[in-house]
Parts: sequence; C-alpha cells; structure tokens
Amino acid sequence: MLSDSCYSGESDDRSGPELCKLFETDPSESWKVGSCTIVPDDATKIAEAVKSRCKLNKAQIEQQDLCDVVVTTGGTGLTSRDITIQALAPLYTKPLPSFSTAMVVGSLKITPLAALSQVSCGIIGSTIVLSVPGSRKGSSENIQQILPILPHAVATAQTESGSSRALHA
Amino acid sequence: MLSDSCYSGESDDRSGPELCKLFETDPSESWKVGSCTIVPDDATKIAEAVKSRCKLNKAQIEQQDLCDVVVTTGGTGLTSRDITIQALAPLYTKPLPSFSTAMVVGSLKITPLAALSQVSCGIIGSTIVLSVPGSRKGSSENIQQILPILPHAVATAQTESGSSRALHA
Amino acid sequence: MLSDSCYSGESDDRSGPELCKLFETDPSESWKVGSCTIVPDDATKIAEAVKSRCKLNKAQIEQQDLCDVVVTTGGTGLTSRDITIQALAPLYTKPLPSFSTAMVVGSLKITPLAALSQVSCGIIGSTIVLSVPGSRKGSSENIQQILPILPHAVATAQTESGSSRALHA
Ligand code: NA
Repeated sequence: MLSDSCYSGESDDRSGPELCKLFETDPSESWKVGSCTIVPDDATKIAEAVKSRCKLNKAQIEQQDLCDVVVTTGGTGLTSRDITIQALAPLYTKPLPSFSTAMVVGSLKITPLAALSQVSCGIIGSTIVLSVPGSRKGSSENIQQILPILPHAVATAQTESGSSRALHA
Repeated sequence: MLSDSCYSGESDDRSGPELCKLFETDPSESWKVGSCTIVPDDATKIAEAVKSRCKLNKAQIEQQDLCDVVVTTGGTGLTSRDITIQALAPLYTKPLPSFSTAMVVGSLKITPLAALSQVSCGIIGSTIVLSVPGSRKGSSENIQQILPILPHAVATAQTESGSSRALHA
Repeated sequence: MLSDSCYSGESDDRSGPELCKLFETDPSESWKVGSCTIVPDDATKIAEAVKSRCKLNKAQIEQQDLCDVVVTTGGTGLTSRDITIQALAPLYTKPLPSFSTAMVVGSLKITPLAALSQVSCGIIGSTIVLSVPGSRKGSSENIQQILPILPHAVATAQTESGSSRALHA
C-alpha cells in the first residue's frame, strides 16, 4: 500500500521533525510525508488548512496531492488560545473517540501530564485527522499509540463497502 | 432480579450467538435473551429498531416485551457505511461515556485493534443500549468489560428516586 | 502559587469533608478551600450555582471570592435525576475529556463500578470544573487521579498567551 501522510495545522519546529521521523521510520508501513504548514491560533484558518489536505469525497481518494492522514500539533492545551479541537470537531464526518482514548490511555502510562492535552481524532471525508499536543515528547507519545493500526484505519476509511466487523476476529 | 436482554440492530451470525451465550451463562445475573433483528446500514432503520425495544417511559418499565438492555453489533468501524453510533446518539436520554471508556480500555489491553471500533453506550428511556463491533471476538471482549456491573446499572437506570452516589462506598 | 478551591453543586456530608481534606493536605499545592453549597437535582440551579463561583472573564481572574477550581459531587449516576453533567456541559468554554479519561481510567483500576459514574471535566471562563460522583470513596478516587496536575492546569487555564505545548518535553 502506498500512503501519504502530511502535517498540517499548528505544527512547529519542536514536534514536526520528530513526527516526520516517526512516520518515515515506521517499520510496518511506507509513509510519504508531505509538507508542513504553520497556522495561527485562528479557528477558521485551522479548519481551512486541514480541510484543504483532506480527501473530501470518493473521487479524491486517488488524488496524490491530498492526504490519507493529517496530523495537527499544538493548540490542544488549556489556554483560551488552544482552539484546534474546537476548530476541527464540526468538520468530522465521523469522530474517532476510541483513537483518542487509546492515545490518552497510552500517554497516561508515561506521564500524568497527558491529561493536560485534549487530543482528538476523527475522519474528514476519507482522511484520518489526528490532533495532538505541540510538544515533541507529547505528540510523539500520542502518535505512537495508534501508529501500528493506522495503515488498517486508512484502508478502512477509504472503502465504501468494506466492513471493520471482523477486525478483532 | 429478573431482567431481559435482547439483541437488536445490526447483529449477524458471527457475534450474535456468542453474545447470547455470554449473557445466558452470566454467573451473576439471570438474563432472558430476546430476539435478534438484522437491520441494514440505514440510520433511520437502526434508530427505529433499537427504539422499538426500549422502555421509553416509566409506564413501560414493567413491560415484558421491552428490554432492560439492548446490544447492537456492527456498524462501529471506519467505513462510511458504519453509522450505528451516529444513528443512536440523538436517541440517548443520557450518554454513558464511562461505559465506553471501560469497554475500550479493557479491550485495548487485549489488542491495539480495539481503537478501530468506536463503541458507544447510553440510556434511552430506562433501557441501557450498548453498541459494540460486529466481530465475534471484539463484541464479546467489549461486553465482558461491563457485564459484572450491568445488573446494578439496569436497576439504577429504572429507578426514579434512587441514587448511585454510594456505589463506590 | 496561591490558589483557591471551592466546592459547589450537589455536595453532601459524605464526600464534602473528605474532598476538603484531600485539597487541604495536598503536598504539592496550598489550596484555600471555599464554601460548600447543597443544590437540588435541578439543572438550572446546578448551572447557576457553579457559574456563580467561576471566573467568567479575564477581569475576574484576580477576584478572590471566585474559584480557580469548582468541584461538584453527585448527580453523575444512571437515574433520571442524575443531571449534573447534562446541566454543566453547555457552560463549558472548553471541555476537558482527557481529564475525564484520566479519572475513569484511574478509578477503573480500583473498581469496575467506576463505569457507573459519568464524570465530566471542563473549563468555564478560566475556572476548572470537576464533576465527580457523590460517594466519599468514588469522588476521592477520581480527584486523586488529577490532583497532581491541577496546579499546572489552573495556571494554564488563566493564561491568555501561554501554551501547554512543552508540558511533556
Ligand atoms: Na497547547
């Protein structure tokens, strides 16, 4: 399988390169990492930046310049400027709360500070969007929790008639 | 306590019989398992099928043909046809996120694939509705996480004046 | 750092004193515990009681009679009278699902009954609001899960320009 991954949203120097390396050295999948965009703490601009990378309809699934996975970093904290999750929630065609739970549960095993970051995951069209904290360590820890199942998730999110019912079987 | 449990929603041959056995052999409660209905991936039909089994008001609590617990299986994955959770969410008179967290946390201990299924739990009227994946193994693992507390949950959901405040005490 | 903590909402004799002691003996922070208010199972009254203790805007951050943290106890169970979470959700300027996950995950390690309480956490203005069960043991277990990170959370919730991005670093 050939997959794209690109970083969008409020990425910064701290977490961007680390996340790129995480995807590029993923032993179970060959990810092509796209470009990184820095977006200000503005809900409309965050939403537009992420949406512009997503495969919004079936016709776009094969489009090479759009992403299978979009990762946003930052804007997940407790200050009033942290609005990434609120900006993206209305765009989700399907929220993925079990992804978020897996991220938080895994990160809580490493540090209780994980509760301070409000991660969020969802599907927009057929693109999987992962919103993690902006810290190098926090973002990496969160992504690592779901990286092994991400290829399967991407394949399933892009199938119209498929079913995930036998995944545990 | 005499309780009813029936299976509704998108159940299929894989998970249905396994779940029936799980309830019928529950050592801590004597469940009466009702009928199983197969429903297509249609939000309105899923909602109607589930609602028709629920005790929507106080007068229906003693009604023997309605259920204390409804379990739906399937339609919890990442494809665009997986719509069970979106179909049922508007019907919840009270969402039960801690049930879902208990299911996901318990299932994640068994397999990281658990993050691929978006389980959901809630009360409709005074019926507890549990939406789990369609796979035999996944659905069974999820239900097992909350089966020991389900009799207590059923009793509490059907009481108007009671309180669950001393449950941990 | 000097912080205030007060208890509001549906507190009762069982959990109130225990929670007070928990905050007053917190080794990592010097909390000033405010007054306790008993509120009936009425959504409007719960919302008003909590809101009246919150720092709703920047100008109120230094106001000594308002709280950095509000804890509500009770009204989190499965009966139709348990409405605390539904009453407060619309007031959140930012929900804190990772706080709730940390509470539930930690409490599930102690007892499977933790799934019966639907805890909820969020920010109202710049006040952190924690809604936990009314039982002495359950409320205490939940609060203990996030008490070590609460001072950091309070400081971050009150800063306009700060960022929590480096917290894991
Ligand atoms: Na942040």
